[in-house]
Amino acid sequence: MATQALASWATGLQYSSLSVGVVDAAVKSIYNWAGCAIGGYAQSAPTIALDTFSSFSGHGTCSIFGSNDSSLVDAQTAALINGIASHIDDYDDTHLETIIHPSGPVASALFAIAQQQHHPPVSGQDFLLAFIAGVEAECKLGLSVYPEHYDVGWHITSTTGSIGAAVAVGKLLGLDTPTLQQAIGIASTQVTGMQEYFGTDTKSFHVGRAAQNGMLAALLARNGYTSSMHGLEAKYGWTHVVSTRENLTDVLATLGKTWEVEKNTFKPFPCGIVIHPTIDGCIQIHDQAAQRGLDMKSLKSLRLGVNQQVLTLTGKMDPQTGLEGKFSVYHASAVALLFGKATPTEFKDEVVKNSTVVETRKKVQTTVVEDVRTDQSHLQATFANGTVIEIFVDGAIGSLKKPLTEEQLQTKFLDQASRVIGHARAEKAYNAFKGIATLKNVAALHKMISPERTRQ
Amino acid sequence: MATQALASWATGLQYSSLSVGVVDAAVKSIYNWAGCAIGGYAQSAPTIALDTFSSFSGHGTCSIFGSNDSSLVDAQTAALINGIASHIDDYDDTHLETIIHPSGPVASALFAIAQQQHHPPVSGQDFLLAFIAGVEAECKLGLSVYPEHYDVGWHITSTTGSIGAAVAVGKLLGLDTPTLQQAIGIASTQVTGMQEYFGTDTKSFHVGRAAQNGMLAALLARNGYTSSMHGLEAKYGWTHVVSTRENLTDVLATLGKTWEVEKNTFKPFPCGIVIHPTIDGCIQIHDQAAQRGLDMKSLKSLRLGVNQQVLTLTGKMDPQTGLEGKFSVYHASAVALLFGKATPTEFKDEVVKNSTVVETRKKVQTTVVEDVRTDQSHLQATFANGTVIEIFVDGAIGSLKKPLTEEQLQTKFLDQASRVIGHARAEKAYNAFKGIATLKNVAALHKMISPERTRQ
Repeated sequence: MATQALASWATGLQYSSLSVGVVDAAVKSIYNWAGCAIGGYAQSAPTIALDTFSSFSGHGTCSIFGSNDSSLVDAQTAALINGIASHIDDYDDTHLETIIHPSGPVASALFAIAQQQHHPPVSGQDFLLAFIAGVEAECKLGLSVYPEHYDVGWHITSTTGSIGAAVAVGKLLGLDTPTLQQAIGIASTQVTGMQEYFGTDTKSFHVGRAAQNGMLAALLARNGYTSSMHGLEAKYGWTHVVSTRENLTDVLATLGKTWEVEKNTFKPFPCGIVIHPTIDGCIQIHDQAAQRGLDMKSLKSLRLGVNQQVLTLTGKMDPQTGLEGKFSVYHASAVALLFGKATPTEFKDEVVKNSTVVETRKKVQTTVVEDVRTDQSHLQATFANGTVIEIFVDGAIGSLKKPLTEEQLQTKFLDQASRVIGHARAEKAYNAFKGIATLKNVAALHKMISPERTRQ
Repeated sequence: MATQALASWATGLQYSSLSVGVVDAAVKSIYNWAGCAIGGYAQSAPTIALDTFSSFSGHGTCSIFGSNDSSLVDAQTAALINGIASHIDDYDDTHLETIIHPSGPVASALFAIAQQQHHPPVSGQDFLLAFIAGVEAECKLGLSVYPEHYDVGWHITSTTGSIGAAVAVGKLLGLDTPTLQQAIGIASTQVTGMQEYFGTDTKSFHVGRAAQNGMLAALLARNGYTSSMHGLEAKYGWTHVVSTRENLTDVLATLGKTWEVEKNTFKPFPCGIVIHPTIDGCIQIHDQAAQRGLDMKSLKSLRLGVNQQVLTLTGKMDPQTGLEGKFSVYHASAVALLFGKATPTEFKDEVVKNSTVVETRKKVQTTVVEDVRTDQSHLQATFANGTVIEIFVDGAIGSLKKPLTEEQLQTKFLDQASRVIGHARAEKAYNAFKGIATLKNVAALHKMISPERTRQ
C-alpha cells in the first residue's frame, strides 16, 4: 500500500499545515535552483539540447532560464532544458543522507507547468506546496533504497526524481489519490540515470529527463491513461526492481513527521559533494599560506586522507574538460590551493588545461583512510621551505553542520546569475524568487530570468 | 570495448552483405509492425496519449498510423504514439529466446525519422538496413542479460529497445562509430519498463518511450552532446546496473554471424506469448467439439498442465478489461473454446465482461507441471456427456516450429488494418509495406496508413 500511502499523503497536504522552517527550506531550495538554472545556461549542454529539441517544441508557453532568445518553448521542452541547466554545474542542492539533488527534477517540471497554466494562475503558495510534496516523495523513496540502489550504479537524483516530479505536478494539477497513484506508476517505470555518465553532459540530461518523465506521467494519468495502483511496492514494481533492499513502509510512515526538505543543503562548490571537505581544507591552506607569505609554487605536496567514495566518485587524475574536473579531487584541490576558491569559473575547460593547475594537481596524493567519513578530510600541505600545514575538516562549509548563510546563498545566486543575465537582472531575480511565497502568479517570474532585451 | 564493438559493427553494416533470408525476415517484421500499429490505433491508449501530447508537438512532419485526422505531428510525438499503438494489442512480434518484441521501438523511431527527413529521402533499403542494425542490437543485448534481467521484473522489450532504436536511428543518420557510441550511452541510461504494468496502457507506453529515448539519444549525440564511450560495459553502465549476469562480449562476437531478426516470430494471438500453446490447443478442442456436435455450454472443465511462467505472467483469474484479458490464461482459453479464435475482437472489454465468457473461464483449472516448457501445454476438456478431449501442444502456431505462413501474416494484417482504415486501404498498405525494399522514399508509405479521407 506504499503507493497509496504516498499519494494520499501528497493529495492531503495543505499549505496551512507547513511550518515556517519547512517553507523557508523550500524557498531557499527554489531560489538556489533558479540561480543554478540561469548560471548553467552558460554551459554548452543546455544549448545543444535546445538546438536538438527546438523543432520538437509545440506552442511556446515557457521560458528557458538564462536564454536571451525571447522565443518560448512548450512545457515538455522547458522541463528538459531547465532541468539540464540547473544541474550542469553540479552546483545545485544535496539531501546528504541520499546524495539526491532534489530540486532539479521537481522545480523544473513545476515551473514549466506553472508557466503553461494561466487559468487559474499558480500562486507562490501552490507552487511551494507542490514542490514540498515532490521533494518529500523523492527523498523518502531515496531513503528507502539507499545505499544499495546507489551502490549498484544508479544516479539516484533522477531515478527518484521522476517520481518526485510526478507527485509535484500531480499535486499542482489537483489529481485525486487514485489518479496520483497511476501517475506514480507511469513515472516510476521510467528509470533514468547511471553513474557512468558523471562528468559528461548526460549526467544533467538525467535531471531534465526526470523532470519530463514525471510531468508527462501526471498529464497522462489525468487523462485516464491506465497504469498500476501499486507501482512502488509491487513485486515487479519500482522498489524491488531497482534495489536489493527497501524499507519503504517504514520510511513512508515518517511523511509529514520528518521533513526531508529541511535537511536540504546548498553547494558552495560546483562539483561532486564528496570533494567539498577537501576543497574547504584547501581554501584554508591557501589563506594560511598567503598570511605566511608562502608562494603556492613552492608547494611540494598535498597529502589527502579521504573516504573511499572520494576516489570512487571523483578519482579522475587527468581531467580534460571542465565537466571532468568536477569529478576530480585532484583538480578541485589544485584550484582551491591556487585561487582560494572553487566557483564555476575554476571549472572551465581552460582552467582544467592551465599548466600551473596541471602542475599543482600532480602534487596531490590521496590515501583512503578507513575511519574518515565522506564529510571529512585530512590535509597535509608541505612546502619547499619545510613548512607543513595540517588541517582536519569535519563537515565542510555547506553541510548541515555549517550551512550556507542567507548572505552566502545570495552571493552564490548573484555570482551565477550575473554572469549570464547581468547584475541588475540578477538582483531582481534573486528578490523575486526569494519572495515566491507572496506571489499571486508564479509565471510572472519568467520576466526576471533572462537578460534584459534591447528590443521589445 | 562492447560499446565500440556494437557501434562499429552497426556503422560498417552494408545492405549488399545481407542475405535474402535476413532481408525477408526484416520485411515481414516491418509489415507485421505496421499492421499492429494501424490496428492498435482502435484502442484508447494511443488516443489518450495523442490528446495529452499533441500540444507538445512541434511542426508536423509525421503521420499517426490509423488516425483519420490528417494533421501531422513531429517525429518525437510520432515515435511515441506509433510505438504505443504497435504494442497495445500485444499482437506484434517476439524474439522467443529473450521474449523481446523487437520491431516496436526500432521501427516506430525509424519511420518517424524517415518521414521527417526529405533530403535525401530514406529509401526502403536504407530503412531495412537501419532496422536490421537496431533489431540485432536490442536482441543481442537481451541475450547477454537474459533471463536474470527479465526475472527481476524489467520489461526487456523496452529496456533493450531504447538502445536498439538509438542504433537504428544512428545508422540511418550516418553517425560515425564514436558518435554512435555516445548515442548508445544516452539511450542506455534511460531504462524504461517494468512488468508490473503488463495488462495496462503503460506496457505499451514503454515501447513508445523506448522509441523516443533512442531517437533522441541519436539526435543529441549527432549534435555533440557528451556521454560515455563505454555505456554498455562500464562498471556503472547498462549491463552491470540492470543485470546480475552478462556475457556481453561473447554475445556481441556473434553479430553478423547469427542473425536475430531471422529468429523473429509473429503472434497469431494478441496476448502474452506464454498462453499461445494453450490457445492453440483450445481452438483445436473447439473444432473437434464442433465436429462431434458438442455444445461448448456442456463443457464441465478444462484442465491445463502448464509451465510456471504461464501463471506468473498470465495468471489473472478475473480480468475486468480487455487489456487484463490478454494476461489471463483463463480468459484466453474461454474465448478460444467458445469462438474458435483469439483475435483483437475477443479481447475487447465487452467480451471480457460477457457472462458466457465469464462462466466458461470459471471452468478452466490450471496446474503447474514441472517438465512442461513455456511453448507447450497439456489440455484435457471434459464434457457433460462424458466425452474427454485431450491435446498436447508442443510449439504453438506462430512459434519457430510452426511459423505463420505469408498468407497467414497477410490475413492478420488485413484483419487488423481493415477494422481501422477499411479493406481497400488495408490491401494497399499491405502491398506497399511488403514491397518496402523497392521503395525510393519510405515516407511515401504514409499515404496508405490512414483511412481514405472524404475531403482533401
